[in-house]
Amino acid sequence: MSLKKSDRPVLNTILSPSLLELYDVSDSIVVIIDILRATSTIATALHNGAKAIIPVDSVAKCIKLGKQLEVITAGERNGKIAEGLQYGNTPLQYTREFINGKTLVLTTTNGTKLLHLALSENAKGIITGSFCNISAVCDYLINQKSNVVLACAAWKNRINIEDTLFAGAVINRIKERFDLNCDASQIAQSLYLQAKNDLFEFLKEKDASHFHRLMKFGLEEDIRFCLTEDNANVLSIYSNGRLVKG
Amino acid sequence: MSLKKSDRPVLNTILSPSLLELYDVSDSIVVIIDILRATSTIATALHNGAKAIIPVDSVAKCIKLGKQLEVITAGERNGKIAEGLQYGNTPLQYTREFINGKTLVLTTTNGTKLLHLALSENAKGIITGSFCNISAVCDYLINQKSNVVLACAAWKNRINIEDTLFAGAVINRIKERFDLNCDASQIAQSLYLQAKNDLFEFLKEKDASHFHRLMKFGLEEDIRFCLTEDNANVLSIYSNGRLVKG
Repeated sequence: MSLKKSDRPVLNTILSPSLLELYDVSDSIVVIIDILRATSTIATALHNGAKAIIPVDSVAKCIKLGKQLEVITAGERNGKIAEGLQYGNTPLQYTREFINGKTLVLTTTNGTKLLHLALSENAKGIITGSFCNISAVCDYLINQKSNVVLACAAWKNRINIEDTLFAGAVINRIKERFDLNCDASQIAQSLYLQAKNDLFEFLKEKDASHFHRLMKFGLEEDIRFCLTEDNANVLSIYSNGRLVKG
Repeated sequence: MSLKKSDRPVLNTILSPSLLELYDVSDSIVVIIDILRATSTIATALHNGAKAIIPVDSVAKCIKLGKQLEVITAGERNGKIAEGLQYGNTPLQYTREFINGKTLVLTTTNGTKLLHLALSENAKGIITGSFCNISAVCDYLINQKSNVVLACAAWKNRINIEDTLFAGAVINRIKERFDLNCDASQIAQSLYLQAKNDLFEFLKEKDASHFHRLMKFGLEEDIRFCLTEDNANVLSIYSNGRLVKG
């Protein structure tokens, strides 16, 4: 049974970090979406037992904090391991054997930057979302009964298809529980409904720019992993400067 | 016969004015898109013989310039005639009997603001686009062989469906002549292909926010007019502070 309109919290979608400032997020849970690959990697690391992931917004901070805490540093710039860091942003690397019980400091081109933007805008709560943990994300959003902003990390503020598709997938699952007074949400859902039978083929057919970039780096396996639902189905929630299993 | 990839100019799409700054428009023709209703009204007024339309970015400037030049003032804020102005933003008002040979000073919530933003970013050229003059827009863009930015006026920087649909319609017509290295263009075209059989029904079904706002004001006829291809098929080009028939 769906709730009466007035009882429902509001769900908005931003397709680029540049649009976050248009919304007051102080009463909203912000879902950080960076499908290729930051938020997929975060879900995978937590699913495989990582103690915590500390997202930082620069390579310099990542190196510094890694030394201070004596923990693993990882991150990429422009789709490749950033200079001075130990590991990259490929979810397949974060196996249980490698990451169980460990803490990771992570910086990425788009996703971790957006997380810090949401923090500076005083988001009520922050979680990260990916196809890898889509059910955990949707369950959490339904249970919280709070306003939601689905926030696509995009590529250097330029809208991308894969993050938009994930926003659409979430909307498609939970829309009955929320007021959607937002054209961007409708656009995202429409795109997802077109793509859902084969997300990989859709990205290929549309020559999605970051898909194309990663394919050139030989990362097809990464992409396929990042487009698979619930293969790392844990909630990733931000608390006291760390992303932890919810 | 399509051109070789390297010979083609680049076409990008911005779904909100907030994203214009991501592109260098100094080598691009910027197409201002504000389907409901500024750019539809502009095409209609020019088609029906208006001498020129002077777009201004505030109601105060509109009133002042209207007095100085002794010309018609028009404009809206939030979908209604702005206080102190004579006429609104309904294309149906700008009949040949009314507007032929006259000059109009116009200000609107989104479209005229975006035009001034494109000016301040030193756009190489500026035209306005709407379904009412889509063929003239596409012919011009093909003939210019220049880079293009399709710029959606959106609603107070929030992405809207109708402007996105128009960008998609243009892309669908001219994409063979341009390099599309832009996910937003792909998203717009995908949305248009879903909607094209009945744009009005698509906006209704998706509960598009500004569509909904105008329907509440009883403006269904306006909306239907604004979604009709080539019913005011003239080029609207910005030159020396004025939009004139190209």
